[in-house]
Amino acid sequence: MSNKLHDSLFMRALRREPVPRTPVWLMRQAGRYLPEYLAVRKKAGSFMQLATNPELACEVTLQPIHRFGLDASILFSDILTIPDAMGLGLYFEEGEGPKFERPIRNQREVDALPIPDPGDELRYVTDAVSLIRKELPDDVPLIGFCGSPWTVATYMVEGGSSRNFATIKAMVYQQPQLMHTLLLKLANASAAYLSAQIEAGAQAVMIFDTWGSSLSTSSYKEFSLVYMRHIVAALKANPQTRDTPVILFTKGGGHWLEMMADTGCDGLGLDWTCDLGHARERVGNRVALQGNLDPGVLYGDTETVTRECHRVLNSFGNGPGHIFNLGHGIHPGVNPERVTDLVRAVHNFAAIETT
Amino acid sequence: MSNKLHDSLFMRALRREPVPRTPVWLMRQAGRYLPEYLAVRKKAGSFMQLATNPELACEVTLQPIHRFGLDASILFSDILTIPDAMGLGLYFEEGEGPKFERPIRNQREVDALPIPDPGDELRYVTDAVSLIRKELPDDVPLIGFCGSPWTVATYMVEGGSSRNFATIKAMVYQQPQLMHTLLLKLANASAAYLSAQIEAGAQAVMIFDTWGSSLSTSSYKEFSLVYMRHIVAALKANPQTRDTPVILFTKGGGHWLEMMADTGCDGLGLDWTCDLGHARERVGNRVALQGNLDPGVLYGDTETVTRECHRVLNSFGNGPGHIFNLGHGIHPGVNPERVTDLVRAVHNFAAIETT
Repeated sequence: MSNKLHDSLFMRALRREPVPRTPVWLMRQAGRYLPEYLAVRKKAGSFMQLATNPELACEVTLQPIHRFGLDASILFSDILTIPDAMGLGLYFEEGEGPKFERPIRNQREVDALPIPDPGDELRYVTDAVSLIRKELPDDVPLIGFCGSPWTVATYMVEGGSSRNFATIKAMVYQQPQLMHTLLLKLANASAAYLSAQIEAGAQAVMIFDTWGSSLSTSSYKEFSLVYMRHIVAALKANPQTRDTPVILFTKGGGHWLEMMADTGCDGLGLDWTCDLGHARERVGNRVALQGNLDPGVLYGDTETVTRECHRVLNSFGNGPGHIFNLGHGIHPGVNPERVTDLVRAVHNFAAIETT
Repeated sequence: MSNKLHDSLFMRALRREPVPRTPVWLMRQAGRYLPEYLAVRKKAGSFMQLATNPELACEVTLQPIHRFGLDASILFSDILTIPDAMGLGLYFEEGEGPKFERPIRNQREVDALPIPDPGDELRYVTDAVSLIRKELPDDVPLIGFCGSPWTVATYMVEGGSSRNFATIKAMVYQQPQLMHTLLLKLANASAAYLSAQIEAGAQAVMIFDTWGSSLSTSSYKEFSLVYMRHIVAALKANPQTRDTPVILFTKGGGHWLEMMADTGCDGLGLDWTCDLGHARERVGNRVALQGNLDPGVLYGDTETVTRECHRVLNSFGNGPGHIFNLGHGIHPGVNPERVTDLVRAVHNFAAIETT
């Protein structure tokens, strides 16, 4: 990694080193709220045609960097690339979210799942990472990512988005061994996938556990957390990847921050329901904290966005280890001007505080 | 209240008095998973024709009491009866959830909202309460309920269910005074509504804050919690209602239990992500705790249901103040036999523990 990247605000904050101001990036910063994204999306045809085309994925990844001057970049991709590469047939129905043509329901189907080769079926991702790294400003780190095994499994078993998780809950509670077999496969595939992203040029990686909080505390430990820990451990055991920081994010998982920090990860994403100061008291300086503005604040005006950004910055307080972000991805329909307001509010905060 | 009701396990547990075994009831215990419910629902025509017919509402309220021998009953109704009585035109589209014909978007519309008279527009609810109280076994308490002002307002402003709460978040962040005017009206209407349910025969009341966790901690305090506290204070200030226990439930609000207990309520509902033992350490013996089995466990088999019920009972531990419940409503598609298993597991638990 170049010195410029190593010494960037984002990387320093992730290492809990002092920074002159809080770095900021936003989950789903490349997305439907941006007119320039919608133009590329239209040109590509479908979401998957966009996500699997390295040049176009690179183009949309860089859009918010150029427009807003954010302090970190995140690969434009999807958490369901791994099961798609396993042959489940991912597709998106307009307004309905992701679906799989061939969901996974029994031992035979789990056993038959191949572990995808990141250099082959997922080559379009590592190609995108290499290209983005080449095109990004040389002081802007690139974050790679994957979904958590549990979260990815919910889509694979349910066949798409779910409200009650009926099929996978039945599997958790009736066939826990089958569930564990699937989750271990996904954890191994995810570790290889993140390693390949790091090798291709990512400076940090993040694991998105969007549906961890569909589980009770004991089930979360057994079916989600342990597999995120498995990925962290695999990355930390490999000399090629052990210095790359890993960020975990379980939406609705504010109860579980101590356990998450115990995985050996470097940072935790916090949703908007957590109090940053309180979270910091709980996990100490073991990990950096990333978050946690309510994404709904971006439906407000400039003054509101500024005030609420200051509230988040004040709730973390002084000291190292904070990366400003939303508590969840940017909603479609947000006015990009409000994101400009947000970045300005965060970037100018130190100046405000010392005047 | 009769001695039998006053001394029932549910009422004693709510008062944190010792009980020989943990009482149990289940959110949405009268509902679509029951064939006998579906039969009445079909006879009634629409959901609203069922909910507004006191005889039919009474019939479905009693169904799970007769089938399972639960320790408490909850009025069959909906959290959106108040805005419907305010004239917003509630209707249900198959598979799409509740909608309003006339959502509330501006000062003029908020100002024009009438406070419904529980003895008039909502008479069908108090009539149902009286009838249910008459028909229930004389040792089974009846729980009345309403939605929290914030949760009800999300439907009124968005015009139905919402994913991102775009319209109401814009109102929260751009027109907080307008939001407060609406929420205060709803809090006053809710207090009058719960008082009327108590007068008609409810032994306890519950406030459902389904969407409180769509807010950040600071916004939750300002826009949801304060209005639940307003309702609690109104009920506690009235000699006719002050002895009736009030239970608060904010789904996803496990961070906020201390603040919720500080409202002066008598019990807290906990979703499945909370650890009951940990929650108890945090709020002490100030309030009873209700919950919190993952409703997905009911997709499992008898053995699983039994084991997971024991896990919840053990996580609370010994001592008074626990009411067994799910962490959320029963999902449609659950086999009613699993609810039989659940009730048996809870009812037999003390016996298991002492052998």
